[in-house]
Amino acid sequence: MEDDVFKQFREHSVAEFFKKNRQMLGFSGKVRSLTMIVHEFVTNGLDACEEAGILPEISVQVEELGKDHYKVTISDNGPGIPKSHLGKALGQMLAGTKFHRYIQQRGQQGIGAAACTMFSYITTGQSTKAITSHGGKKLTAIISMDFKKNKPIIEVTEETDTEEHGLTVISEYKDVRYERSNYGIFEYLRRTALANPHCTISLIEPNNEKTVFPRSVEINPKKAYEIKPHPLGIKPHDLLEFAKHSVENKRISSFLQNTFARVSAAKVEDLKSMLPEIDFNKRPDKMSWEDAEAIVGAIENVKWIAPSTDSLVPIGREQVEASFRNIFNPEVLVITQRSPKVYRGGIPFSVEVGIAYGGGVAAANKRGEVMRFANKVPLLFDAGGCAITETIKTIDWKRYNIRNFDEEPIAVLVNVVSVHVPYTSAGKQALSSEEDLMAEIKFAVMEASRGIQRFISGRKKANEIATKKKVVSRYIEQLSNDLASLTQRKPERIAKELREIVEEKYVDTKKESIKPPEKPKANEDESNESGEPDVNEGETNE
Amino acid sequence: MEDDVFKQFREHSVAEFFKKNRQMLGFSGKVRSLTMIVHEFVTNGLDACEEAGILPEISVQVEELGKDHYKVTISDNGPGIPKSHLGKALGQMLAGTKFHRYIQQRGQQGIGAAACTMFSYITTGQSTKAITSHGGKKLTAIISMDFKKNKPIIEVTEETDTEEHGLTVISEYKDVRYERSNYGIFEYLRRTALANPHCTISLIEPNNEKTVFPRSVEINPKKAYEIKPHPLGIKPHDLLEFAKHSVENKRISSFLQNTFARVSAAKVEDLKSMLPEIDFNKRPDKMSWEDAEAIVGAIENVKWIAPSTDSLVPIGREQVEASFRNIFNPEVLVITQRSPKVYRGGIPFSVEVGIAYGGGVAAANKRGEVMRFANKVPLLFDAGGCAITETIKTIDWKRYNIRNFDEEPIAVLVNVVSVHVPYTSAGKQALSSEEDLMAEIKFAVMEASRGIQRFISGRKKANEIATKKKVVSRYIEQLSNDLASLTQRKPERIAKELREIVEEKYVDTKKESIKPPEKPKANEDESNESGEPDVNEGETNE
Repeated sequence: MEDDVFKQFREHSVAEFFKKNRQMLGFSGKVRSLTMIVHEFVTNGLDACEEAGILPEISVQVEELGKDHYKVTISDNGPGIPKSHLGKALGQMLAGTKFHRYIQQRGQQGIGAAACTMFSYITTGQSTKAITSHGGKKLTAIISMDFKKNKPIIEVTEETDTEEHGLTVISEYKDVRYERSNYGIFEYLRRTALANPHCTISLIEPNNEKTVFPRSVEINPKKAYEIKPHPLGIKPHDLLEFAKHSVENKRISSFLQNTFARVSAAKVEDLKSMLPEIDFNKRPDKMSWEDAEAIVGAIENVKWIAPSTDSLVPIGREQVEASFRNIFNPEVLVITQRSPKVYRGGIPFSVEVGIAYGGGVAAANKRGEVMRFANKVPLLFDAGGCAITETIKTIDWKRYNIRNFDEEPIAVLVNVVSVHVPYTSAGKQALSSEEDLMAEIKFAVMEASRGIQRFISGRKKANEIATKKKVVSRYIEQLSNDLASLTQRKPERIAKELREIVEEKYVDTKKESIKPPEKPKANEDESNESGEPDVNEGETNE
Repeated sequence: MEDDVFKQFREHSVAEFFKKNRQMLGFSGKVRSLTMIVHEFVTNGLDACEEAGILPEISVQVEELGKDHYKVTISDNGPGIPKSHLGKALGQMLAGTKFHRYIQQRGQQGIGAAACTMFSYITTGQSTKAITSHGGKKLTAIISMDFKKNKPIIEVTEETDTEEHGLTVISEYKDVRYERSNYGIFEYLRRTALANPHCTISLIEPNNEKTVFPRSVEINPKKAYEIKPHPLGIKPHDLLEFAKHSVENKRISSFLQNTFARVSAAKVEDLKSMLPEIDFNKRPDKMSWEDAEAIVGAIENVKWIAPSTDSLVPIGREQVEASFRNIFNPEVLVITQRSPKVYRGGIPFSVEVGIAYGGGVAAANKRGEVMRFANKVPLLFDAGGCAITETIKTIDWKRYNIRNFDEEPIAVLVNVVSVHVPYTSAGKQALSSEEDLMAEIKFAVMEASRGIQRFISGRKKANEIATKKKVVSRYIEQLSNDLASLTQRKPERIAKELREIVEEKYVDTKKESIKPPEKPKANEDESNESGEPDVNEGETNE
């Protein structure tokens, strides 16, 4: 009887897992599911264009075929996908060009597109149609999946010559719904356009209304380069994995220099002097767990140059400012961009924050609004479980003259860029509560908040001064008449002099402009909570 | 140049995916990671014992080996694991006895134990040691994983005869921390014991303090049986998948009766009469997508008996009450247990809710406390992104005389049991926002809240009456003296009579006991938001 249960022992594919747990991919709720589909193909399109150096043009069309039944067509002008990879790219989970690379991209799992193929098939029984133009060939193919094996089923129906490039995916879905809400496709694309000013995005909604979000910048942003991992935060297991696969390096010393960023010959000498017991001339694949632990321990006690900023491409100060002015036209706006840091596994990341206060924020009736982005992709869902939202909640807003964050006319934009964003689930809508990440988000928001605080306290002071001035001014007429009769001078003259004294004393501080600090004071009231050695920002070599 | 990127195309195993994204398994943060490890093995142990009909005894020991470095030993008295399956059970992801079955269990993915083996290895370089006693044999084995292949690496180091049964897993972890906080192991086990009164759990903490949570019930709860899926909510794709693999059934009609719960010959006749165009004598594997869509459409228009309650085992009214009295000793306590419902794919679930108010809740300084459980497993993390928390937020508490949920002495326990709990991620700490699920949680909380409301308004009324009585009583002495001098009767007599009149008029309603409604009025102010046909609860045949 006890053994019976082991007769039920089975092995499952990752496709079966996500088919049963599609909510983990973000397919829960009708509106959300439709937005997730557009999200997967739009992010893939943007990544493909940027990698190939093409200015992105993305078009999305959503047609209503029946109740909760839609056809979605998404095209990009990227390089397209070659025949050899088309099936796997759209019909196999955990297959792709991104998962194993240290490069800032929107996609990073190799799940999303295949997940859409799966969702289309299980809700409509239909295969997905792909038209790809790549390397002079234009292919049309019908793609579905063998879930048990997690393998694509592909049939190429047409093949012609072309000089174009790009990818169009056409698929049908049921159990989804189009809505122009905060969680719908329109808002998703609007925010994508805000964070990606170099791309043109068009949307045709089910009612045939066409909206174009045109590009406002005619050049691609600086390209995010693939980088080597940074030694800070590397764990013994990572080090051993790298060492095991390092065939081209004969010695641990050259292995360290060639595998990791910022490891110079001088730094290897530092490590050697700290670890006399380790033979750095040993072959890397002979490295033991103990060696790896000792090296990692020593790494944490060396001062390192921060990760290369080439690897990370934020939205950019001007663009965040332009976007925010555009949406809100706030009374005051502060932008903060922090230098890159690393978290677990030597993974560099950087945080940029914009805070808008008053003016249009109040007019739009926004209160405590948080706009989250990761690698410039808007995050619309799972706000409650996201490290960004959680961090903002921990901030003592009263210190910044914000009495109650949720009731003040304040909007906070946070964008985290990284070569690997730690999402809480494969649906990629919320960031995990990594300590180093949360600390850095907090510092960035606090830094921007200080600008807001100066503005609010400045305004408060200005109001106080204006009140005092008004009160004092009330006495000028009476006083100048009295003084005139005492001194025999003209009362107008005395009044004018008194007014000048008052004006001089109560200067209108409102006119002072509020600017963020030129050089962020990174360590002002910020204890290093992560317990990790400080990256010396002065050494950063951009 | 464009093709370069496709040279980087790779396929990855699910183990590599979760190794890189271990936060998706709940391994983020030091305290949380350690709690997750205990959670995985304790839930597996409880499941194994219950399936084998053994009263569970679980022991957990946590030893501190160094800074953020611990050894964890977890034993259960379950049936153990046979040699043939030991490696896969502890060293391969998506392998196990639970994923494909319709049965209420704590584990349901076949990921957790292998995830711990992985986490141990990548943080310490150590393999996991397992001692299993099963079928007369006692084995000791050392287990690790080949991440690239998602396959176990197992070495059996000892094999002897035994008459015992059970499993002990011993493993080491770094990057974790023991803490007696709301998120720590102690609290996790305390809540597990609350929801599982039939098991004895012992804990030895790093300071060698031993705590035993003894069982309070000497029999196992009713066993959760494996069931057939319920037709309501089945989607065309599910139906087709079942049909494709239905070799023993020659006709669609018998296939439907044998595959799904609650499908009688009479119900098949109902379906037939609604679908004259479909040949129900056809072989099931000849079913087309159109057939499947039509059958699913018809199923939604037939009245079905609710899913069998045998398949779902809640904590139970008495136990929730006993546990809540035990923790809080509240002024008032209302328990609600709703009959099973189904969500997507014919998956039955049921919700039980306990609400404690005042008394010990106030004394313990708890305000708006929410205790979440799924299949009797406490959920300590990701509250912000959980359907339970989200649903409770949407309730208009003022209707129930709760002015501000977060500031009142109220504690809400919600337990959702199901043959498949829709978790938001593989870390299984939050429920996805499935519409049907949220609606049902809301109804259950609202139902219980009505009991609290009656209590609060009763108390309010009682206070008002007591105040009036006091005011009126003040006049009795004066009035009885005045009346005595007017009527020549004894003032004491008049006072007594007046007091009786007052007592009669102002009855102390406080003494009325507050009880939940005997028969829940399921549709009282509850519109059927899911748009699905009502399950007729009267027909439920337990």
